[in-house]
Amino acid sequence: MAHTVKDKTKLLARVRRIKGQAEAVERALEAEIGCSDVLMLVASMRGAINGLTSELMEEHIRHHVVDPAHEPDPNRARGASELIEVIRTYLK
Amino acid sequence: MAHTVKDKTKLLARVRRIKGQAEAVERALEAEIGCSDVLMLVASMRGAINGLTSELMEEHIRHHVVDPAHEPDPNRARGASELIEVIRTYLK
Amino acid sequence: MAHTVKDKTKLLARVRRIKGQAEAVERALEAEIGCSDVLMLVASMRGAINGLTSELMEEHIRHHVVDPAHEPDPNRARGASELIEVIRTYLK
Amino acid sequence: MAHTVKDKTKLLARVRRIKGQAEAVERALEAEIGCSDVLMLVASMRGAINGLTSELMEEHIRHHVVDPAHEPDPNRARGASELIEVIRTYLK
Repeated sequence: MAHTVKDKTKLLARVRRIKGQAEAVERALEAEIGCSDVLMLVASMRGAINGLTSELMEEHIRHHVVDPAHEPDPNRARGASELIEVIRTYLK
Repeated sequence: MAHTVKDKTKLLARVRRIKGQAEAVERALEAEIGCSDVLMLVASMRGAINGLTSELMEEHIRHHVVDPAHEPDPNRARGASELIEVIRTYLK
Repeated sequence: MAHTVKDKTKLLARVRRIKGQAEAVERALEAEIGCSDVLMLVASMRGAINGLTSELMEEHIRHHVVDPAHEPDPNRARGASELIEVIRTYLK
Repeated sequence: MAHTVKDKTKLLARVRRIKGQAEAVERALEAEIGCSDVLMLVASMRGAINGLTSELMEEHIRHHVVDPAHEPDPNRARGASELIEVIRTYLK
C-alpha cells in the first residue's frame, strides 16, 4: 500500500477507534453491565468496521485499480466512481 | 448481567480475540502491507464480531427472557429455542 | 403462526414489495440498464429484506416467547423489550 | 450494461430464483406456517441476494473498470483481481 500520509492517518484513526470500542466491550463484560447495553456497544463497533471496510475498498480502487480523479479514459473513470458509490451504499 | 463464570470467560475470550485482530490491522496499516491483505484481516474481524453478537443475544435470551432448558411452558421453551436457532443462522 | 389479521396484512405487504423489487431488478437486467443502477435496486431490496426479518423476529418474540405488553413478570417483560430493541438496531 | 449473453442469462436466473423465494415466503405467510420456518426462508433469500450482489459487482468491475483477464497493465490486473476476491469474501 503506497497511500498518502493523510489517508494512512485517517485509516489508523479508524482502526484505533475500533480497538477502543473492543476495550469498552471488554470492560463492560467484566463489570457485568446489562447484556443489552453490551450488545449496543458491539453494534457500534460493527458500524465502525463497516466504515473502515468501505474506506479501505475505496483506497484500494483509487490506488490499485482506477482512480476516477486521474483516469484519462472517461468510461473507466465513471465505472470506478460508480463502484465506489455502490460500495458506500452497501457498507453504510 | 448475572451470567455464569463459564459464560463470562467465553465471552471475554471472544472480545479479547477481536481486540487482538484490531491490533493486527493497526500493525498491518503501519507496515503498509497490501490493501487486500488488510481487507482480509478486517473481514475476519467482522466474522468474529458476528460470532460475539450471536453469543451475546443467545445469553440475553437464556438469562433475561426464556431459557429453553429450564422453562416449564413447552410453547415458550420451543419459541425461545427456535429464536436462538434463527439468530445463529442470521449471524453465522 | 397465530398472528393478528393486522400483523399478517403488514407482513404480506412487505413481502409483496420485495417481490415487486425482484421484478424491477429482472426488468432492469433484461433492458440492459447500467450495472450500478441495478446494484442500487438490489441494495433497496436488501434493505427491505432486513426490515421484513426484523418484523418477523419481533412477531416471533411477541407471539411465541414473551410479549412485553402482556407479560406479568417485569424482568422478562424488560428482557424481551430490550431484545426487540437490539434486533431493530442490528437489522436497520 | 453490454454484458455477454451468458452473463445475462446467469444473472437473470439468480434474480428469478429470488422472485420465487419471495413467492414462497408470501405463501408461507398466507398459510400461517411457523414464524421460525418463515424466517429460515427469508434467510435463504438474503443469502441469494448477497450472491447476486457479488456477481453484479464482479461484472461491473470486469466490464466497466478493469478486466483482470484482458488488462495489459499487470498492477491494475492484480488490483482488480484482488478487489473481486475481497468482494466475494465480504458477500459470501
